[in-house]
Amino acid sequence: MVSADILERLSTMLAGRHGADPSSSYVARLFHKGTDEILKKVGEEAVETIMAAKDGNKLHLVREVADLWFHTLVLLEHAGLSHEDVLAELARREGISGIDEKNARKEQ
Amino acid sequence: MVSADILERLSTMLAGRHGADPSSSYVARLFHKGTDEILKKVGEEAVETIMAAKDGNKLHLVREVADLWFHTLVLLEHAGLSHEDVLAELARREGISGIDEKNARKEQ
Amino acid sequence: MVSADILERLSTMLAGRHGADPSSSYVARLFHKGTDEILKKVGEEAVETIMAAKDGNKLHLVREVADLWFHTLVLLEHAGLSHEDVLAELARREGISGIDEKNARKEQ
Amino acid sequence: MVSADILERLSTMLAGRHGADPSSSYVARLFHKGTDEILKKVGEEAVETIMAAKDGNKLHLVREVADLWFHTLVLLEHAGLSHEDVLAELARREGISGIDEKNARKEQ
Repeated sequence: MVSADILERLSTMLAGRHGADPSSSYVARLFHKGTDEILKKVGEEAVETIMAAKDGNKLHLVREVADLWFHTLVLLEHAGLSHEDVLAELARREGISGIDEKNARKEQ
Repeated sequence: MVSADILERLSTMLAGRHGADPSSSYVARLFHKGTDEILKKVGEEAVETIMAAKDGNKLHLVREVADLWFHTLVLLEHAGLSHEDVLAELARREGISGIDEKNARKEQ
Repeated sequence: MVSADILERLSTMLAGRHGADPSSSYVARLFHKGTDEILKKVGEEAVETIMAAKDGNKLHLVREVADLWFHTLVLLEHAGLSHEDVLAELARREGISGIDEKNARKEQ
Repeated sequence: MVSADILERLSTMLAGRHGADPSSSYVARLFHKGTDEILKKVGEEAVETIMAAKDGNKLHLVREVADLWFHTLVLLEHAGLSHEDVLAELARREGISGIDEKNARKEQ
């Protein structure tokens, strides 16, 4: 099984590049350009995900969903949020008791 | 820290509902409707993510990204894939050391 | 040739239903719901246009583009604009002299 | 009033550039790249339309809707269709008297 720790490592990487010299990396440049450019990328990757699914190309679909998730991580970091907030929301809906979810969030 | 195991649990839940009686749950009904309906939901949640970000509403943004990720999990399961494939792709890119992640994607 | 007057007639119809009792028509209800609901429809029809094009279904494609244009007309009316503004912008880009375009806009 | 003939002129221009040397114009290059690239542009302009509307910027909104309509014209030409087909579809729906336009669409 691939560890989901990759989301944690990506979030840490993104936090480190947020505010860095725009010329230092693709992500630093995207943060520098701001919300609208990040949102255009989210929209673009969503469209490409839909097109890959219509093509029935599994390899392509995985890459596009990875692009889409990656750019939503960029969006979350830009808004002062992270994958943790999204996973907590998904867990909350799953029906984990409110107490457990609250405790989990305190430990962050 | 919220455990990323929630993705594993959701994927297991989705696999169990794939092919189930459409009247048994929202997800079973969505699988039954097929690819186009799932893709409409992915598109819809991407648009709502963009709108929530424009509104600067963090709580709303987290909910919409959760909706977007959830429906991409449905799409992956419907295509015979899972979150594992996406996490593996993200980890693969991370491992291409010394190369900016965008360049890595361009070289694919 | 089908007359493009249909855009004029639709704009007139939309202006008449803007502010009308929400229960009186689909469009009156959509105006009443406001910008976000109109934008969700624009996004939805854009996604369905893309899907119809991927399917290579011409009949379906025409219907989805018609839906997309229709909902952008609703959006324009809601913003105090109309198809005239969009056609004028397209004509301006085409290279019609600035004077002509300016005069055309004064006559609105 | 701005004449809607601009749609006719644009369609004629697009037909003339369909199949032309890709280096001769933006549109010739887009036709040469094919359906997926055209669809990415349609998706991109839809997202930018939504963002302009959220910003409440009328000038920007008109430009983005013009971009969106323009790229749907490119898509139509690429599929062997034109604005005439879309206007005819809109006129057909208008002519289904006594029925709300949404109901008419549902019945198709």
